[in-house]
Amino acid sequence: MEQIAYVNGSFVPMSEAKVSILDRGFLFADGIYEVAAVLDGKLIDNASHLARLERSVGEIELALPESIERIQEIQRELVTRNNLVNGMVYLEVTRGADTGRDFAFPKGVKPTLVMFTSVKDIINAPSAKTGIGVITVPDLRWTRRDIKSVALLAQVLAKQAAAVAGAGEAWMIEDGKVTEGGSSSCFILTQDDVIVTRQNGSEILPGCTRKAVVALAEERQLRVEERAFTIEEALAAKEAFVTSATVFVQAVVTIDGKKVGNGKPGPMTDRLREIYVEFAKKTAV
Amino acid sequence: MEQIAYVNGSFVPMSEAKVSILDRGFLFADGIYEVAAVLDGKLIDNASHLARLERSVGEIELALPESIERIQEIQRELVTRNNLVNGMVYLEVTRGADTGRDFAFPKGVKPTLVMFTSVKDIINAPSAKTGIGVITVPDLRWTRRDIKSVALLAQVLAKQAAAVAGAGEAWMIEDGKVTEGGSSSCFILTQDDVIVTRQNGSEILPGCTRKAVVALAEERQLRVEERAFTIEEALAAKEAFVTSATVFVQAVVTIDGKKVGNGKPGPMTDRLREIYVEFAKKTAV
Repeated sequence: MEQIAYVNGSFVPMSEAKVSILDRGFLFADGIYEVAAVLDGKLIDNASHLARLERSVGEIELALPESIERIQEIQRELVTRNNLVNGMVYLEVTRGADTGRDFAFPKGVKPTLVMFTSVKDIINAPSAKTGIGVITVPDLRWTRRDIKSVALLAQVLAKQAAAVAGAGEAWMIEDGKVTEGGSSSCFILTQDDVIVTRQNGSEILPGCTRKAVVALAEERQLRVEERAFTIEEALAAKEAFVTSATVFVQAVVTIDGKKVGNGKPGPMTDRLREIYVEFAKKTAV
Repeated sequence: MEQIAYVNGSFVPMSEAKVSILDRGFLFADGIYEVAAVLDGKLIDNASHLARLERSVGEIELALPESIERIQEIQRELVTRNNLVNGMVYLEVTRGADTGRDFAFPKGVKPTLVMFTSVKDIINAPSAKTGIGVITVPDLRWTRRDIKSVALLAQVLAKQAAAVAGAGEAWMIEDGKVTEGGSSSCFILTQDDVIVTRQNGSEILPGCTRKAVVALAEERQLRVEERAFTIEEALAAKEAFVTSATVFVQAVVTIDGKKVGNGKPGPMTDRLREIYVEFAKKTAV
């Protein structure tokens, strides 16, 4: 059965899911997106994703075309229509399609809202057991990375470089410090068992899974420091891992081909993954 | 009559000109664009635009789906089909629509090519006579501004700020110097009659109209310096102006509300505009 997508009020087969070539998402990357995981047909940490959606659209003065409540209803309906058990729901809001192409915001144009789903067994993904290698690349992005916009070309190039190198992610470096992964937040566990991840700010996206993992770790009295770290620190660390909506918590076993720790997923990473999965299932909607 | 657009091999009414929601232009800003002016039904400086298109797609390893010669044929056919006399042709190439959403380049996916036209009387635009005011904004963009990608959200925000302020353009500032306008190149004429515009590099887009104006000025033994300048220098200058495919050469008469020179378009700006228009008409195809 063909996948069903949502486009501006209608549920349509993916082959008919289209937007105008004048859509500002297509012309200007004038749009915001979110990706929420689905486990057992339920949305994971979705309130956090929708809160970040509201924040992002606010930062670029883009009004949502539907309420947050209605957006969640549509997400859930799409999951149902696609019989999605495990995977993710992607959603994108753009400033809509005007009658022409002007940079400044159009007046009286309804924003575009699209959604689609993908199948992925996040829990049993092979890389969850093996961990991934990462490469490092310069962080080429703009200065407002806290906004989850679809202006993702720098991330595309970073993740393509990783794919070419046979790596699972690219860690972006700025001023000698790791900012974040192409589509994930970066963590290390120091030799004295401190979980370190970069503090939020305009330099990185405030990761939803990152936020949950930090909170879950702190609840368990684990030591967490939010600060920038270098690749040298990461290579000297006991463990390294990334978090994102679509990998949850995933071990990083090599950086630029050099082993982190013993080159295998470490016990803290495994523990945080378990804790996160438990949280995810408990709070799924 | 409804405007005709070009989408992946077909000429279609604009209301039917659509791309998949999986198009990487829409999901990732993974695309390149160009805008060429049209005067009297002919394309202006088009070889320069198509050379820049080739360079931009090369920088992101995106293969054009049609030859440069064929792209120009399509541009011309679109001008003819729309009976376009004066205006512009927009073209965008993206890395196409895959069956899902992965950051890394898809394999075996044909790039998307779309085009559409707009009507504009560039020669007789009111602002060509009056000049425009500009505001200054911080340059928020990524570090590869030499690539003409559709990841334009920073420019959208800059030009929206200009529109809100009643200005015609936003000049972007980085490290105390002007980089460029939201969609134009910036020039000043110093008190000792030197035309100054920022040198090309990854900090700015290599403007086609900028390039032509610099060459035309040098052919006429006018003094040109390619270097960065500050807003203080611009406010102390005799004249200031911007260049772009869709304004040609346009006087800047105020910056953040302060007059440049006597607050009116100056003779050098007018002269360069005339020279450019003459060049444009002579080389139109």
